[in-house]
Amino acid sequence: MKKIVFCFLFVLANMIILHAQQPADYVNPFIGTSNFGATFPGPIAPRGMASISPFNVAGSQNLPLEKDSRWLSNPYVHENTFLTGFSQVNLSGVGCPDLGVLLLMPTTGDLETNHLKYGSTYSEEIAKTGYYGLNIDKYNVKSEFTTSKRVGVSRFTFPKGQANILLNLGLGLTNEQGAMVKIVSSTEIEGMRSVGSFCYNNPEAAYPIYFVAKFSKAADTFGVWKKPTKYKGVEAQWMPYNGKTRIMKNATRMVVGDSIGTYFSYKFDKIETIEVKIGVSYVSIDNARENLEKETGNKSFETVYKETYTEWNKLLSRIKVEGGSKENKTIFYTALYHTLIHPNTLNDFNGEYPEIKTGKIGKTKNTRYTVFSLWDTYRNLHQLMSLVYPRQQSNMVKSMLEMYDENGWLPKWELNSTETFTMVGDPASIVITDTYLKGIQDFDVQKAYKAMLKGADQIENNPLRPGLQDYIEKGFVTTKNKGSVSTTQEYNASDYSISLLAKALGKKEDYKRFKNRSVSYQKLFDKNLNLLHPKTEDSHWYEPFNPLSGANFEENIGFIEGNAWQYAFMVPHDMKGLVKLMGGKKKFTKQLQKVFDSNQFDMANEPDIAYPYLFNYIKDEEWRSQKQVKELVKEYFKNKSNGLPGNDDTGTMSAWLVYAMMGIYPLVPGEPKYAITAPMFDKITIQLDSKYYKNKNIIIERQLNNNGNISKIQLNGKVHKSFFVSHENFVNGKLLKVIQN
Amino acid sequence: MKKIVFCFLFVLANMIILHAQQPADYVNPFIGTSNFGATFPGPIAPRGMASISPFNVAGSQNLPLEKDSRWLSNPYVHENTFLTGFSQVNLSGVGCPDLGVLLLMPTTGDLETNHLKYGSTYSEEIAKTGYYGLNIDKYNVKSEFTTSKRVGVSRFTFPKGQANILLNLGLGLTNEQGAMVKIVSSTEIEGMRSVGSFCYNNPEAAYPIYFVAKFSKAADTFGVWKKPTKYKGVEAQWMPYNGKTRIMKNATRMVVGDSIGTYFSYKFDKIETIEVKIGVSYVSIDNARENLEKETGNKSFETVYKETYTEWNKLLSRIKVEGGSKENKTIFYTALYHTLIHPNTLNDFNGEYPEIKTGKIGKTKNTRYTVFSLWDTYRNLHQLMSLVYPRQQSNMVKSMLEMYDENGWLPKWELNSTETFTMVGDPASIVITDTYLKGIQDFDVQKAYKAMLKGADQIENNPLRPGLQDYIEKGFVTTKNKGSVSTTQEYNASDYSISLLAKALGKKEDYKRFKNRSVSYQKLFDKNLNLLHPKTEDSHWYEPFNPLSGANFEENIGFIEGNAWQYAFMVPHDMKGLVKLMGGKKKFTKQLQKVFDSNQFDMANEPDIAYPYLFNYIKDEEWRSQKQVKELVKEYFKNKSNGLPGNDDTGTMSAWLVYAMMGIYPLVPGEPKYAITAPMFDKITIQLDSKYYKNKNIIIERQLNNNGNISKIQLNGKVHKSFFVSHENFVNGKLLKVIQN
Repeated sequence: MKKIVFCFLFVLANMIILHAQQPADYVNPFIGTSNFGATFPGPIAPRGMASISPFNVAGSQNLPLEKDSRWLSNPYVHENTFLTGFSQVNLSGVGCPDLGVLLLMPTTGDLETNHLKYGSTYSEEIAKTGYYGLNIDKYNVKSEFTTSKRVGVSRFTFPKGQANILLNLGLGLTNEQGAMVKIVSSTEIEGMRSVGSFCYNNPEAAYPIYFVAKFSKAADTFGVWKKPTKYKGVEAQWMPYNGKTRIMKNATRMVVGDSIGTYFSYKFDKIETIEVKIGVSYVSIDNARENLEKETGNKSFETVYKETYTEWNKLLSRIKVEGGSKENKTIFYTALYHTLIHPNTLNDFNGEYPEIKTGKIGKTKNTRYTVFSLWDTYRNLHQLMSLVYPRQQSNMVKSMLEMYDENGWLPKWELNSTETFTMVGDPASIVITDTYLKGIQDFDVQKAYKAMLKGADQIENNPLRPGLQDYIEKGFVTTKNKGSVSTTQEYNASDYSISLLAKALGKKEDYKRFKNRSVSYQKLFDKNLNLLHPKTEDSHWYEPFNPLSGANFEENIGFIEGNAWQYAFMVPHDMKGLVKLMGGKKKFTKQLQKVFDSNQFDMANEPDIAYPYLFNYIKDEEWRSQKQVKELVKEYFKNKSNGLPGNDDTGTMSAWLVYAMMGIYPLVPGEPKYAITAPMFDKITIQLDSKYYKNKNIIIERQLNNNGNISKIQLNGKVHKSFFVSHENFVNGKLLKVIQN
Repeated sequence: MKKIVFCFLFVLANMIILHAQQPADYVNPFIGTSNFGATFPGPIAPRGMASISPFNVAGSQNLPLEKDSRWLSNPYVHENTFLTGFSQVNLSGVGCPDLGVLLLMPTTGDLETNHLKYGSTYSEEIAKTGYYGLNIDKYNVKSEFTTSKRVGVSRFTFPKGQANILLNLGLGLTNEQGAMVKIVSSTEIEGMRSVGSFCYNNPEAAYPIYFVAKFSKAADTFGVWKKPTKYKGVEAQWMPYNGKTRIMKNATRMVVGDSIGTYFSYKFDKIETIEVKIGVSYVSIDNARENLEKETGNKSFETVYKETYTEWNKLLSRIKVEGGSKENKTIFYTALYHTLIHPNTLNDFNGEYPEIKTGKIGKTKNTRYTVFSLWDTYRNLHQLMSLVYPRQQSNMVKSMLEMYDENGWLPKWELNSTETFTMVGDPASIVITDTYLKGIQDFDVQKAYKAMLKGADQIENNPLRPGLQDYIEKGFVTTKNKGSVSTTQEYNASDYSISLLAKALGKKEDYKRFKNRSVSYQKLFDKNLNLLHPKTEDSHWYEPFNPLSGANFEENIGFIEGNAWQYAFMVPHDMKGLVKLMGGKKKFTKQLQKVFDSNQFDMANEPDIAYPYLFNYIKDEEWRSQKQVKELVKEYFKNKSNGLPGNDDTGTMSAWLVYAMMGIYPLVPGEPKYAITAPMFDKITIQLDSKYYKNKNIIIERQLNNNGNISKIQLNGKVHKSFFVSHENFVNGKLLKVIQN
């Protein structure tokens, strides 16, 4: 009986994989691996802790995109050619270097531990959902990779002769140093690697990633290498070995160092295949071992791959698109795939995870998520999760509240239970409000509200909102603080969300107070420029001031990663107010159009990504939104390695694309509504989770006549007169139909 | 009942301690802590794995005896003044820096992690058997130390205010780098420190020492500091923290690095005492923890101290000396104490130890000894152990045979299961033969013999005997190899021992062969110089040759750590041959006397330490031996920190003194006989171990008339006509009486 069931399941699994054109089959993991997209092409399970990326950013062969010669935040660049291993934990689409460590590398022949010497070009590169493979030219080793949530699985097919599998614990993308390793037996290694200092910040919070590696075949010989720091001065004269790499054969005791690694060597008299499973954990070696055993135990490479593929396909199938080009389906599903990488799982199989700041080990029954790049993701990614994956979004909010419990503050830019304090603003409040107002309410909203107020009101020792006193007293952050205008706008956006939640919770006083606070940016509006303008501590305009300076990451007194144009409209919650400030609808439209026409619009960064949708606020100008969105998708999103406009920002750019292609966009973070533009498929079916939504699914259809502007919108068969739709009406409806001229 | 027994034991323990003039009370651990004696004044249990030494060799305040500015092999120098901690594992009386790590240091006030800043002068220094104490001037912290075999126990008495206990894992005497640490709780730390590269040699074999530290009071705050390596180049510009020490508060995850440490801080509102127990292990953290628990569990500082004192006193009491000055008793018992430090215990409480070379963990039911500085100790230390502590000596031989099993070779200079390959010769054969011929035979002598033959005969890939082919073919090692004459002499000495064992085992052929080989030094005898002279590969005298060069560690083609004079007589097994070579007894005596008269005799190094006794070979010249020994003891051995002639050489110099003061000396290593000179006490009673000896004890008495030369020797009441006595006759006798004019 069992055998029959097994066979049936096996056939079924094969059917799923063999059946072409499943959502998971459209994913092209190479998208974003060039043009600083900072995604990686290797396998990861949905929201996996482990991931495997080819590592080709070390060595002068890879100049100019070489990790030590510039600010480079990704383990892999598509146009690079010199491979030095396969990193087992990676960040996707971030702007700062970190992780990219535990570099596994197969070589042949005599042992060589210098990555600049053992590195190689490669060919026959294949990347697909849950699988990556290539051939290493120098050694003719076929290398294939898949992962479960916390385990990377590598399969190397070696030619006859001496084969080596190196685990390099020195080389890495992170700029942290230090590792520990212990060879447990001829089939097992355990250890840790220090990582952290994300964005060259908060190095005190550098932390370990623990690992256990298991090999399918016992090594014939093994050892550890260590390249110690070079001694200077008197003692150096007695040290012929000074600064040189040591090969420590048979080493089975603990070795630590900044530049260490292990080798497992084999003598093969025929072609042989070895599988290496590497379990990781942020808690302990024991947990890394348990993760490995529980998730992959005796499973083959194929089995792990199929399971991960199946999990991906199930998730990606939550949105079914029909009637679009293969290219469009590819960029769509790849974008959706990219939104399901971060935030990722932090807890081990047994539920344990490192708490933030306390130094304690916590335990969760749900998923503890990590990698909250909230300055990015508050704008659209969490909104997409609330719509399509509300259980995940609920757990993300719960994770954020756990952080508040542990650390006393909601997260800002949380990375593996460290607060990196990267970027500005107080975005957690927006994410939580947005989630709550969309009906995902199975978390402690009173606690969340208390946490928001603390961030919004505590003037002294507030790590989330520097400059808060000025902001509260004057209405704006002054030039005493970096990015004073941007920061004011971010606080406004957060305060707007807090006001919405206050209202929902019946807290009328707070509602009014925060509503008021949310439009204080108006004090920075400079009528002469028709733009926002930084103010000094004594409330005068900061001069000299060039509204153009600040683009392309140029330092700018008032703005973070942008200039006055790119921030001019970043108050989507107060378009009415801004229209008035700018002198009416016409002037507003003109000014907004100028952002695009004068090439100030930056698709590669977050502050202005909602701008294309803002024309929807002006009657009869909605066509401009449709036009801009269409043009931007065409120009910046492609089925190519450079198919993202820049950093994916842990899926934010991809979430933008997913929404853009569905023809809806959550343009006011915190407020449960969508702007409507033209969908890019004939039919889009979004499955809804019955735990949170009463309908099984919602459908978006387009009726495309001449591929022109929207002439009519229907909701559930009835004419819908607005170019906005509330989340409630949308998810409780059946069909949003968009008819284009 | 139990209570009564306990009280009785307690009183008894106190009585032992309070009773003055016990052997252990004479020990002055400051002897040898100056003049490069390289002993340390802190506590250690007999043959302990753990020991605590004040560490005062770092920082310019300690120049010229500062560890990084010169070759310095000791953690403590008596005349230095700047203390930077208390190291928890140390080597005693060695010539190369290693260990001297795990530096515990109490401070007060604000946290300071730079040892150059937190270091202090000290006062009220007390050192006695099993106890060391001082007051740290800068912080007014009374600091006291004791140890069990594998656990260091520190007791700090802090004034009111902030107290800190630092565990510095960066600073150390070893030139190895790297440590790992993990704060387990507010009372416990675990970790490891890399050590090794003894004598700046064999760095591939660097190895970890693991530790667990337990604090008697929970820290109010704790953390880890880390000073990372400084980045250079492009990335450094984004790292304001580049190369700076980080304070990682509440860190409870693993931290690694070359320069790391932990701090435990307290706020005291009155004077408070904290005890810190640090268990160590060369196997694992778990074993370090078990060592700590099993040896010291809930024991107080006082209890541990009393137990260790009692164990020392019992061992030291095996030789009872009467009728000598307090000074003489002090230098005698301190020397005996120094012979009971190395070889020391390597195995953990549970019997586990790291095997040599294999990388495996072995398990012993006996004691696995380590730190075999055999080039030194083969000359007299093991002979002393065979006489007074034969069970220890038996286990040392067993340990050496285990090393052969594990590594394929007998040890040469073994250090914590690494072979340092320091010095020349093949001394293990001598130690084993000497032990066997003294009747300590409860080891596998056939295996030992096989091991000896391997070292003596295997020409290819023989790590023990470089130059062996020349030695066998030509009779001498040529100048192709360093120290060719010395090495020849060492091989001769080993071969002589092998011949003795071959004879005892009835292996006649081998006996002849090795007896022959043992006098091949004669081919290097240069009649013109009346000294040994190196020969080149084509068997010519090496020229130019200056017999005086090579003293004081000057590099010398033919000799290791000595010159032609210091090696001239280092063939004690062939005095008859040498006398003949030198042209008869008169010329021999004249030449030997010249060594002393021309200041060529070096009391501080091993090659010539038997020379004072060689006059015993010449009838009517024995008085010269008596005179030299007496003068040397008086000149070089004192109850002062500079009371050793130089490096104690893991007890070899001390063993020389013990024998010298007893009036006997084992002048031919391997041959069970003693030269007789004048004892320096009226009565010396050596307890004999009934497991190996039939008599309970043996007594040496002197009858001192005018403090002159020996006029008569009596053995068991009968006139003994020789100035030598065989080990057999000696230990089976009752009384050796020496009558002096």
